[in-house]
Amino acid sequence: MSGTDVPEAAREEVARAVREALAKHGYAGLTTSKVAAESDKSEAFFFYHYDTKRDLVVAFLDWATGWAESRLADAKSHPDPVYRLYAAVDCLLGDPADPHDRGVYVAVMELLSHAPHDEAFHERLSTYERGLIDDLAGVVRDGVEAGAFRPVDPEATAAYLVVTADGTAGAVMALGMADVGASVRDRTFDYIDRVVLADGVERPADVRA
Amino acid sequence: MSGTDVPEAAREEVARAVREALAKHGYAGLTTSKVAAESDKSEAFFFYHYDTKRDLVVAFLDWATGWAESRLADAKSHPDPVYRLYAAVDCLLGDPADPHDRGVYVAVMELLSHAPHDEAFHERLSTYERGLIDDLAGVVRDGVEAGAFRPVDPEATAAYLVVTADGTAGAVMALGMADVGASVRDRTFDYIDRVVLADGVERPADVRA
Repeated sequence: MSGTDVPEAAREEVARAVREALAKHGYAGLTTSKVAAESDKSEAFFFYHYDTKRDLVVAFLDWATGWAESRLADAKSHPDPVYRLYAAVDCLLGDPADPHDRGVYVAVMELLSHAPHDEAFHERLSTYERGLIDDLAGVVRDGVEAGAFRPVDPEATAAYLVVTADGTAGAVMALGMADVGASVRDRTFDYIDRVVLADGVERPADVRA
Repeated sequence: MSGTDVPEAAREEVARAVREALAKHGYAGLTTSKVAAESDKSEAFFFYHYDTKRDLVVAFLDWATGWAESRLADAKSHPDPVYRLYAAVDCLLGDPADPHDRGVYVAVMELLSHAPHDEAFHERLSTYERGLIDDLAGVVRDGVEAGAFRPVDPEATAAYLVVTADGTAGAVMALGMADVGASVRDRTFDYIDRVVLADGVERPADVRA
């Protein structure tokens, strides 16, 4: 089985347990027992619904994709496209001081490194990255259409911002280089200020930088 | 033993074989036999000089650090600081069409994901990232002092550019999203054009973008 017959609440719990186990042990050191140890559910539950370590990780990836999308959706609910862009990029950059964010970023980075050898990871991670870029490109396009942004290329700008945020998984999240994280956040917001916003448009005062 | 008593030419050969094996099998699937299979040297040689898989990977990381530094050093030999910055960033972005670059970027990304659990990886990768940022900050500082760049913060600008280049390891190198790679290269060079270069200074005509 691959967990598709598991109720949604249980799938959420599985994804949470896999994330905790990945953060502690990495993919290389992951076992079903270690995932079960992070959960109230029994080992038998995990072995019944998720035959293999890969099934568990695919469940995690499906959850992570939804999680990133729902965070971006929250950011995108604001009526002002200028605010939406800063909020979406803030989401993408994550919080290096939050063990949850660090765990997810480092786990996704590890799985990305396996993508060249694993078709199921490759497919889900490609969907994940493309989804982030498409979502952010939509935010950029709204701002261009509203005249709040310069006529930048929405897809290229979104790809650039998403890849920069992806890059924080290594130096910032895995190695804990806090000064690098602060610089990247500062320079990324400065990039939006200088290159994306139309003349006369300013960064909203309540955006955390 | 950890390979420190191995002559330099042999260490280079070991690093090459580890890189090939990492690119094919990933760290999780790496064995000394698989490394030996990528080399003219015997398994006995590897088992004698490199007791463990970790010793092999540490040898690879030591080589990768030197490799990145020597590439940047080549870029830095040009007398014009403007040219030097574009050339250094070109190096950092690598070539997603080159299997060698893809192999190194994806292997370093995988090892970064193990850094939270492995002190030797953490130490070497921190030295590696810090070395890249310091080197690039030196290039930025030279340009600011020469009046060719605006008075940008050299460390923050370098950290931002290095992390963006790091981010290509996932979507571009591991997943093969060529359009994303082209966008990131284009937007990064555009960033230097617009934010780093002083007024009246232009991108050199022979810089590949």
